Amino acid sequence: MIIWQQLSKQQQVSTLARPAIRDNQVLAQNVKHIIDAVRDNGDTALLDFTQTFDRVTLDDLRLPESQVQRSVNALSAERKQAIQTAYEQIKAFHNAQQFQDIIVETRPGVTCQLKSEPIESVGLYIPAGSAPLPSTVLMLGVPAKLAGCERVVLVCPPDKDGNLADEIIYAASVCGINEIYRIGGAQAIAALALGTKTLAPVNKVFGPGNKYVTEAKKQLSQAVPGFAIDMPAGPSELLVIADAGANPVFVAADLLSQAEHGPDSQVILLSDSAQMIEAVSNELHTQISTLPRKDIAEQALEQSRLILCANLDEAAAVSNLYGPEHLSLQVRDTDSLLNKVRNAGSIFVGDYSPESAGDYASGTNHVLPTYGYSKVTSSLSLADFSRRYTVQTLTKPGLESLAQTIIELTDAEGLDAHQRAVTLRVDADASFNDANDARVKNAEGRQP
Amino acid sequence: MIIWQQLSKQQQVSTLARPAIRDNQVLAQNVKHIIDAVRDNGDTALLDFTQTFDRVTLDDLRLPESQVQRSVNALSAERKQAIQTAYEQIKAFHNAQQFQDIIVETRPGVTCQLKSEPIESVGLYIPAGSAPLPSTVLMLGVPAKLAGCERVVLVCPPDKDGNLADEIIYAASVCGINEIYRIGGAQAIAALALGTKTLAPVNKVFGPGNKYVTEAKKQLSQAVPGFAIDMPAGPSELLVIADAGANPVFVAADLLSQAEHGPDSQVILLSDSAQMIEAVSNELHTQISTLPRKDIAEQALEQSRLILCANLDEAAAVSNLYGPEHLSLQVRDTDSLLNKVRNAGSIFVGDYSPESAGDYASGTNHVLPTYGYSKVTSSLSLADFSRRYTVQTLTKPGLESLAQTIIELTDAEGLDAHQRAVTLRVDADASFNDANDARVKNAEGRQP
Repeated sequence: MIIWQQLSKQQQVSTLARPAIRDNQVLAQNVKHIIDAVRDNGDTALLDFTQTFDRVTLDDLRLPESQVQRSVNALSAERKQAIQTAYEQIKAFHNAQQFQDIIVETRPGVTCQLKSEPIESVGLYIPAGSAPLPSTVLMLGVPAKLAGCERVVLVCPPDKDGNLADEIIYAASVCGINEIYRIGGAQAIAALALGTKTLAPVNKVFGPGNKYVTEAKKQLSQAVPGFAIDMPAGPSELLVIADAGANPVFVAADLLSQAEHGPDSQVILLSDSAQMIEAVSNELHTQISTLPRKDIAEQALEQSRLILCANLDEAAAVSNLYGPEHLSLQVRDTDSLLNKVRNAGSIFVGDYSPESAGDYASGTNHVLPTYGYSKVTSSLSLADFSRRYTVQTLTKPGLESLAQTIIELTDAEGLDAHQRAVTLRVDADASFNDANDARVKNAEGRQP
Repeated sequence: MIIWQQLSKQQQVSTLARPAIRDNQVLAQNVKHIIDAVRDNGDTALLDFTQTFDRVTLDDLRLPESQVQRSVNALSAERKQAIQTAYEQIKAFHNAQQFQDIIVETRPGVTCQLKSEPIESVGLYIPAGSAPLPSTVLMLGVPAKLAGCERVVLVCPPDKDGNLADEIIYAASVCGINEIYRIGGAQAIAALALGTKTLAPVNKVFGPGNKYVTEAKKQLSQAVPGFAIDMPAGPSELLVIADAGANPVFVAADLLSQAEHGPDSQVILLSDSAQMIEAVSNELHTQISTLPRKDIAEQALEQSRLILCANLDEAAAVSNLYGPEHLSLQVRDTDSLLNKVRNAGSIFVGDYSPESAGDYASGTNHVLPTYGYSKVTSSLSLADFSRRYTVQTLTKPGLESLAQTIIELTDAEGLDAHQRAVTLRVDADASFNDANDARVKNAEGRQP
């Protein structure tokens, strides 16, 4: 147990330090090589890399439509129902995030609007590892479709028989996604960013992945103008603030649910009760012993921190300094604590809101800023699948009423052509409208 | 004049190609050297670089508060009024962008919220060149203050006497910004990202700058976890769609106002009228001859494109392919065209809405995605100075009603600890509340 107030400033900083993500030049070079190959050789490179990395020889990268019905038939009714229920929960919350146009007449004759439009095409990267991740399909596919993106492309590495998991295919079909490719790794991101004969490029790529995928997203978002990615990636994190009234069984279960994600997961408990910290510590040992992913969780727990704070105000301050991806508040007076915490990706309020509810089915998105980015980056929402732009309409009197302001400022900034674009309009004699009518008429006569 | 329909697909693409931004290894190395020096030597490095690049020896990087009154006295009433008017216009539009919390009960007992909070500290970079840019202070300072950022730091390179322009200081003071430093270049961005003794680090940096500033923003946003920048930078662009009824004098003035920004500015005219293109071309030659920034504008016009389209539908399609930063619609039926255009940073509707109105005083922000990023990136708005996060609250019955869904999905994904965080809560016997009460009481007795 760490006692916060007994730490020096320097020790406090190092206690909350995240494991360093080192620049890996070899990885960067390998990924660059893959990207270059996809740029130069397109589909051929994709098929080759799939053979090398996924150990399967495909005729066609695109998943045949016929596969959907096969997956529907293969899955149990219970599993399909679970995917359907999660889909509806996520849809309900994300649909409420539709952007409302903002229109302001900033002065008579000057109207400014903030509007939203879907990003035309998006790519969703779904990893495949020891188990399929249908929840990630839903977390990305639901907002992409709700936002109105015209093309929603899903990519996922195939197994050694060239198949994707039935859960992935079914979740995609529930979302209404039918452009699916059996590719993974850095080569999949390269294909989405650069395009090949089979796969037209997309504007933005979303989704988690291994270090090759992360590096490819980083390199391509820097190198390809107009191509964007969702957010910086880092190890997953959970910080729990528990008071003396919390249930140590629940707290330990939550910490372990984070720890089982990977050996680099970060797990932090803050409490104002030494007894609670002891009880949680004991529970962690009890519960971990029967976990299938015990080895992973144990590695993650080695970097865990159980910190005793003087009070919940101090706990809030420590949490704000860290900026956790997931923040769980298992305290009696949640309202008071909610007013003090900030810099969290998603907040889980009370004893019955485990992180895994949000990971799957409460309705919130599980793609969240991590590694300290919760201080600057928003949690994934409908807004990430669309873009906001402005529209302004000035009448002649509206422009006239701002002319003096613009003339003064263009004088200050030495931009004469900017000034003339105003003065030529304001000074234009009233005959422009007549002349204009004539010009229109004249031009109409000469239209091709 | 280019006739769109006579171009091959390949020629169409190259006609809309932007000038390549090449990787500049020497620049990258120089900037890295500056960043490393600021990391290692803090304020000393900043003072040294200011001596080298800005040719002034400063005692203190921070602008003395006393300077504000001096700037207020130095400026004419007209100039102060212009800055004040622009401030009010920008404030009116940005204040209407305040985020409204979204709360959805996705099912009984499961409440999900999307909330917003200001980014704690932001840095605003204001370039200094041949003339001061008070408009940029307003475009960044107004939303930063409206969003509620606790620290709003402004940096600007000093002149050789160590001063900042009165317009900069006055605009900052109108915004309520009083933490101002006299530093510029890559060293200023490094100081904002890494912090020094004098300048505490900030979470996010905004603002335009030269290639050193741009490269420093790129490198530091990659290297410093939790540090963010506004958006990718590129040369400024204007695309005008003009029909036969437009006024060629206005259109030419707008194209020149873009061209005078810099030799790499991009200027494109689309029209369905060959006569209009000819008239604008003639006007360009007439108007440019008397421009103070004629040399710059001429260089930019060399890469300009005047393109004849078959009709306005085709013009909209070409514009959408290009994705301009600024899009001006000088056509009779603006409503119809507005429904067809997309991928623009800011749209200027009709004959009396010149780009320079939006650059200064209509109320919209002039920080916009360029270089094709208008297909994926939002125009700068209040949202960029804050972040959205989610909050979820489940009751025990709420969690119970989702338990089966989560159990199925954690089975599919092989995450047992995630499952247990739910089952341990749902299976917990009703005595938890009693046990809990006892625990609270017990713990209270033992509180330090």
